[in-house]
Amino acid sequence: MRFAEKLEMALLRSCVCVGLDSVVEKLPSSIQKDPEGLLQFNKAIVDATYDLIGAYKPNFAFYEALGREGWSVLFETIGYIRKVSPQALIIADAKRGDIGNTSKMYAHSIFRELGADAVTINPYMGRDSVLPFVEDPQFGAFVLGLTSNAGSVDIQQISTDTGFVYEHVVRKALEWNKHDNIGLVVGATKDVDMRSIRMAAGKMPFLIPGIGAQGGNLESAVMLNFNGQYVDALINSSRSILYASSGPDFADAAKQATLNLVREIQEIKSRI
Amino acid sequence: MRFAEKLEMALLRSCVCVGLDSVVEKLPSSIQKDPEGLLQFNKAIVDATYDLIGAYKPNFAFYEALGREGWSVLFETIGYIRKVSPQALIIADAKRGDIGNTSKMYAHSIFRELGADAVTINPYMGRDSVLPFVEDPQFGAFVLGLTSNAGSVDIQQISTDTGFVYEHVVRKALEWNKHDNIGLVVGATKDVDMRSIRMAAGKMPFLIPGIGAQGGNLESAVMLNFNGQYVDALINSSRSILYASSGPDFADAAKQATLNLVREIQEIKSRI
Repeated sequence: MRFAEKLEMALLRSCVCVGLDSVVEKLPSSIQKDPEGLLQFNKAIVDATYDLIGAYKPNFAFYEALGREGWSVLFETIGYIRKVSPQALIIADAKRGDIGNTSKMYAHSIFRELGADAVTINPYMGRDSVLPFVEDPQFGAFVLGLTSNAGSVDIQQISTDTGFVYEHVVRKALEWNKHDNIGLVVGATKDVDMRSIRMAAGKMPFLIPGIGAQGGNLESAVMLNFNGQYVDALINSSRSILYASSGPDFADAAKQATLNLVREIQEIKSRI
Repeated sequence: MRFAEKLEMALLRSCVCVGLDSVVEKLPSSIQKDPEGLLQFNKAIVDATYDLIGAYKPNFAFYEALGREGWSVLFETIGYIRKVSPQALIIADAKRGDIGNTSKMYAHSIFRELGADAVTINPYMGRDSVLPFVEDPQFGAFVLGLTSNAGSVDIQQISTDTGFVYEHVVRKALEWNKHDNIGLVVGATKDVDMRSIRMAAGKMPFLIPGIGAQGGNLESAVMLNFNGQYVDALINSSRSILYASSGPDFADAAKQATLNLVREIQEIKSRI
């Protein structure tokens, strides 16, 4: 199935994306604090949330930090999602990008070996660092546009005669989007910027982190992206769902936090 | 030991860096074509070259592409280098970078779990994506400045009132360099650009890929960076060394190719 279709179907179910940024130190007391425990935690989170979400987004750093066993846990987590919820979109939050022959290897790793549907990509190295991820219309890439962190001012927000650097990235992403399988990562922390990037990006799908622990503005993200004209946005929440409770009820609490987010989004949409 | 000192000592031995971009398909006929064979190949390359080089640079994409076993091969390769040549600088060519708390996880993975000395970093997300990699003066980061691939025109070479985007990156890198442990990745494929980035970067160390298979200009790279004023540059070669022969003499051929590169650099230096 083409990525554009997979994304559309995921969004028909739910625009919520759960970021699987799981860390051993924050595992609930009922779970052993090691890579095995982390996998068990991820499985419980998936079981509790899969019928409320459109996508999962494991952040690779959190698995690589586990050392030797990290990639195994990542493989097992993705495999488990596929088993429990074959229709969930899996976005590898890997922020990869390198020269052409190297990006090709990363693409093989992420789509063919790990089995993700999409990946986050850093555009600093330009076209040949991005294109290997979107050559096959089955898979997609979310290119970093404007991120929600403090450092986004350093490079992304440099001003040029033809707009900010991130606007150049948006234009390039539109140009590279031959198979309708490129989206943009756009942080939810700045209203004004999200409006400007949405204007530049047209109907290109957004992946919006920064809701929840990072303090992003859910209301304006929803208002801007679900106004009937633009409907392709995944809203990611990680820590607020994963760590909704540190007790043995963590899975129920994660389910409740996800449901609350779904309802909150519904409520905002109803006011558009 | 501080990274600045590790790098200085590595450069006193040799400015050659061998890129361990090993792929199963290109393994010599005498070696089995699987992850185990790839590790065996890496070990033979290290045995053949360690007394001629200053650094090794495994490119993570090539290990991740091996699937589940990839990270194990990476761990074993780094462990083997440490055993055979404790003084060799190990640069994790991972091109990582994410929001602060995530970059911290990547830094833990690369320095503490894998045991590398330095990492390549993509600066698009700005300060909090870079600083976690250079907080500890023992470890270093090479920030992507101007790369040698075709796509470098797309973002890096966007022109602004105060220079190209890559010049902004250089200025930021200088600003972030409190512990003398930041360097820049500068492709060897464009003479003029290397001169301009060297002027902007002062004495900041360069990691120069693009020599050999990518067709970079060794002569101008050496002329510019080893003229008595600037001496901090590592010159990377990958494919021309790894695949110097596809026969059972691959290790000898790799040694000879490394030696030829060392001699060629010496010869150019002697003409400065």
